[in-house]
Amino acid sequence: MEETLLTANNIWMMVCTGLVFFMHLGFSFLEIGLTRQKNTINILFKNVFIICIGLLLYCFVGFNLMYPGSFIGGILPDYFIDLFGLSLPEDGLTAAYADGGYTYWTDFLFQGMFAATAATIVSGAVAERVKLTSFMVFSIIYVGVVYPIAGSWKWGGGFLDEWGFYDFAGSTIVHSVGGWAALVAVYLLGARIGKFGKDGKVNAIPGHNIPMATAGVLILWLGWFGFNGGSVLSADPGTTSLTLVTTCLAAAAGGVSCFIFSTIMYKNYDLTMFLNGILGGLVGITAGADLMTPTDAIIIGLIAGVIIVLGVALVDKLKLDDPVGAIAVHLICGIWGTLAVGLFGSMAGMDQFLVQLAGVAIVGVFCIVCAFIILFTIKKTMGLRVSKEEELEGLDLHEHGGMEAYPDFRMNQH
Amino acid sequence: MEETLLTANNIWMMVCTGLVFFMHLGFSFLEIGLTRQKNTINILFKNVFIICIGLLLYCFVGFNLMYPGSFIGGILPDYFIDLFGLSLPEDGLTAAYADGGYTYWTDFLFQGMFAATAATIVSGAVAERVKLTSFMVFSIIYVGVVYPIAGSWKWGGGFLDEWGFYDFAGSTIVHSVGGWAALVAVYLLGARIGKFGKDGKVNAIPGHNIPMATAGVLILWLGWFGFNGGSVLSADPGTTSLTLVTTCLAAAAGGVSCFIFSTIMYKNYDLTMFLNGILGGLVGITAGADLMTPTDAIIIGLIAGVIIVLGVALVDKLKLDDPVGAIAVHLICGIWGTLAVGLFGSMAGMDQFLVQLAGVAIVGVFCIVCAFIILFTIKKTMGLRVSKEEELEGLDLHEHGGMEAYPDFRMNQH
Amino acid sequence: MEETLLTANNIWMMVCTGLVFFMHLGFSFLEIGLTRQKNTINILFKNVFIICIGLLLYCFVGFNLMYPGSFIGGILPDYFIDLFGLSLPEDGLTAAYADGGYTYWTDFLFQGMFAATAATIVSGAVAERVKLTSFMVFSIIYVGVVYPIAGSWKWGGGFLDEWGFYDFAGSTIVHSVGGWAALVAVYLLGARIGKFGKDGKVNAIPGHNIPMATAGVLILWLGWFGFNGGSVLSADPGTTSLTLVTTCLAAAAGGVSCFIFSTIMYKNYDLTMFLNGILGGLVGITAGADLMTPTDAIIIGLIAGVIIVLGVALVDKLKLDDPVGAIAVHLICGIWGTLAVGLFGSMAGMDQFLVQLAGVAIVGVFCIVCAFIILFTIKKTMGLRVSKEEELEGLDLHEHGGMEAYPDFRMNQH
Repeated sequence: MEETLLTANNIWMMVCTGLVFFMHLGFSFLEIGLTRQKNTINILFKNVFIICIGLLLYCFVGFNLMYPGSFIGGILPDYFIDLFGLSLPEDGLTAAYADGGYTYWTDFLFQGMFAATAATIVSGAVAERVKLTSFMVFSIIYVGVVYPIAGSWKWGGGFLDEWGFYDFAGSTIVHSVGGWAALVAVYLLGARIGKFGKDGKVNAIPGHNIPMATAGVLILWLGWFGFNGGSVLSADPGTTSLTLVTTCLAAAAGGVSCFIFSTIMYKNYDLTMFLNGILGGLVGITAGADLMTPTDAIIIGLIAGVIIVLGVALVDKLKLDDPVGAIAVHLICGIWGTLAVGLFGSMAGMDQFLVQLAGVAIVGVFCIVCAFIILFTIKKTMGLRVSKEEELEGLDLHEHGGMEAYPDFRMNQH
Repeated sequence: MEETLLTANNIWMMVCTGLVFFMHLGFSFLEIGLTRQKNTINILFKNVFIICIGLLLYCFVGFNLMYPGSFIGGILPDYFIDLFGLSLPEDGLTAAYADGGYTYWTDFLFQGMFAATAATIVSGAVAERVKLTSFMVFSIIYVGVVYPIAGSWKWGGGFLDEWGFYDFAGSTIVHSVGGWAALVAVYLLGARIGKFGKDGKVNAIPGHNIPMATAGVLILWLGWFGFNGGSVLSADPGTTSLTLVTTCLAAAAGGVSCFIFSTIMYKNYDLTMFLNGILGGLVGITAGADLMTPTDAIIIGLIAGVIIVLGVALVDKLKLDDPVGAIAVHLICGIWGTLAVGLFGSMAGMDQFLVQLAGVAIVGVFCIVCAFIILFTIKKTMGLRVSKEEELEGLDLHEHGGMEAYPDFRMNQH
Repeated sequence: MEETLLTANNIWMMVCTGLVFFMHLGFSFLEIGLTRQKNTINILFKNVFIICIGLLLYCFVGFNLMYPGSFIGGILPDYFIDLFGLSLPEDGLTAAYADGGYTYWTDFLFQGMFAATAATIVSGAVAERVKLTSFMVFSIIYVGVVYPIAGSWKWGGGFLDEWGFYDFAGSTIVHSVGGWAALVAVYLLGARIGKFGKDGKVNAIPGHNIPMATAGVLILWLGWFGFNGGSVLSADPGTTSLTLVTTCLAAAAGGVSCFIFSTIMYKNYDLTMFLNGILGGLVGITAGADLMTPTDAIIIGLIAGVIIVLGVALVDKLKLDDPVGAIAVHLICGIWGTLAVGLFGSMAGMDQFLVQLAGVAIVGVFCIVCAFIILFTIKKTMGLRVSKEEELEGLDLHEHGGMEAYPDFRMNQH
């Protein structure tokens, strides 16, 4: 009986793991779709690198760092039992591990897929001008060390968890952790050439493949079935299915409100706004997807959609250049989603709101400081940004031996 | 025990829900792939809009309208308990709801994903000339009201269900409901400029991205695992696995017969015919996927493939302009699939055939009348079709502020 | 109880079936992405054909040929009970069939999805110059007869199985079976015009759509969740989750080592090498994914990544023209993965290594001989290669009535 339930739960968790993995294709499509053709290979390389190195690092250090109590009991020497960090606990494949929700191996893989996501969020924001090696060094440290430490405070049973901070699937612990680093990186990197005119005018730099960007968002939405659905940490029928409903309704509401609000503001049916509104709704519901009624979820999504329009405008106003809107989507909506747990749903209340606010602030300060130290050090040593010539001619030409994304097509160079 | 089975069943239904959601990416790819580059943003906008608004509408009204008996017992005031239509019944998360097949939330979300499909079918047929706002108004009414009413006749336990009409996963209730509206819309809209020459010659207007169209069909095929597999409404091992086998064999047979028949007819290996043959096989098996043997499924698919070739030719002959072949695929093969339940498989028989025929006819008349009233009203008030200039220059230029799908690529304008 | 476990197991197997099906989109994207635009329709046609005909053939003959003992007990006449090969055994839907792991229908469909894979591997290697009809004839015979016979030796309980040969999910039985045929076909076909200069120089012929190739690899990686995860033949929580962990770690390690090694060799961040390294890692772990520790998996992947770099160079050196690297990925890493079972993990040992070697050799000889007979006969009768003119102008123009993959885009012809 118990064994059969473990089997069923574990199936769900493995399916969700696959869906979170698939989000990396979504991020890849979104990022190349919203940037220029001449940097496509470079962006894809970054994304593929992050998935691979993210998983390996999470195996070597991240998993143990993030969930220290779960199997090594804090006794460091045990860590070295298995060269590569993973060490199957005695009951790791039985229902005694994780309340019958999943096995030790599933635990690692599901969490490992999450780890790579934080770095991928940064990848979009720094696109088209970051040095590839510098970004690789940054993401190794950020995914390998910073993400698991922040994660351990909540999901590893750390002090934020003890305070009662709630972050179901990671509006703060994943999305804002990525978003804060994106903010710092964009600040340190500076804008792409041509983004801001001398007169202060903001020039749109259109993405080169909007169908791919759209596919990216739909794939991300599908991936969120696993991201939020798997964060139930079992296949409990009521909670998982409620979670999928709130997730999808928030996404739909975010898209619709963003589309309507941006149409009112800019008199234009803007597809990329619609898409970012969907993502905003998804990030916004992530912190409390299991706590909300459908009505709550729709309201959270509607507000997230409006936040996206305002957030994108604010980022532009601050002369920050974020090619894919990662700061508005992952950072600002991540904060909104975390705070929404104190405003809507079964945990709402002033006390909860303040704890949520504290969690947002503490994680924010930690991530800003860490990201700044890492990125500033890189900037002063190996450099963070490609040369002007390389940026103008495209990163594919210089960093990838002239490999072109679409060599048979005739292109306009921007 | 019962709880564990519910958990397992519910997992399957959630997976299937995700797969049906993913079909929207399939439809998007198929529709933009088979149309011209200059209308790509517009088509993607329509598709993204339909998913979002479809889910929200199904939450507000559709679900209650379609399954009135399931939880509010027809007592209208209960509807207002929850502002947004959904109201968890007391046993909604237990095995007492839906025979242990799934929870109330899963029920809503799975059915909600179906609802948006009907409008998406229309979207392809009207592409490249329909006014965006007009289409949005139409799809709100059609998805919000017409689809759930037709659906309630069968799946809500209405009169068609009482008569013994059988439509397992919706050859009629989903595909023909979309297909009839596509027919009416195409008739009222008229053909794209240049489609039919003055001499009566039919000019092919080639789609601009055939790899995307191909990807769309393969994604739709995968989505059908959930569309048909989930329509078992549990994870019953025998029925679900039989359903996947008949679904895949019909798809394969539809593709092969369509490819062979079209090669004989036109002396040409036509990839888009092959693809539409697969879709025809999928739509054709949908009404009886759980009733057929593999042999039946192959025969149904083989016939569907031939129907596609003839159907596309017929639509052309009638001077109807259906850019993606939606009428042949969803309407004609939807009818074929529904009738096939009376000819093949475990329910075959003259009585059944007549009931199937009656169901096809009644739903057809209802959909034609509704679609005509809605679309004709729109045509006479806000207008249904974009201006000649807008059509020639592309809808992306006019409705989306000149946003281009592929701004870095050099294009030929058609 | 037993019934509930069967339900859960069968869900997992159906999900895996869907994922293996989805690999065909991955292969399609990879193959067109790495070849030239002018042959895109032709390659997609081949891929779609293989999926459809592969499933139908596996239904007609393959399944019975490969698993003769499972239900017809070798009594040939029973074969004709059902016109199309499938014949549900009495206990086919109960836990008595396949130890409660899945139903008869799931068994057929999961295995059927594998069958088509072998031919698809060949498809990439022969791209851009093979005659479509000739390839269709070849793949019908190879998928319909050769693959199931080789498969029966191991998975049908044949002599390789009796010897103790181990091939969990098919490094040899699927990937090398495809890879050997690819080798023979490439040898008999000769190189594409322009690939090898008169001075012996190897000219790179760049693929026309690298984003699609990247998407293909990520989709294949996801598909491998099902390919390896489903090869457990149940949802046993420990084994399935271990399998996914080893699969993903090997993929990541393969990518990283291939990227680092190729960067050292060629001073260039080569995205397609990175991608092929991932595939090499996946193929390499396939034979023993359930036997390895995470550490083993990472080492196997690291070695596979190096093998890819050397293998691609070797194939070039031998003046064999394999546009997508199928020989290095599927054949060489397939051999590596099969031998690795004797070197790493719970079955490692000299005896096992020798059995693995014998299995590799026997299957290799069989496949080479069969592929040679089929392809040589085709070459001497209907011809294997398109005309020089057709190759230069593109296969889409000649075999598909001039259908273009991207008619609205301006192209450079190569």
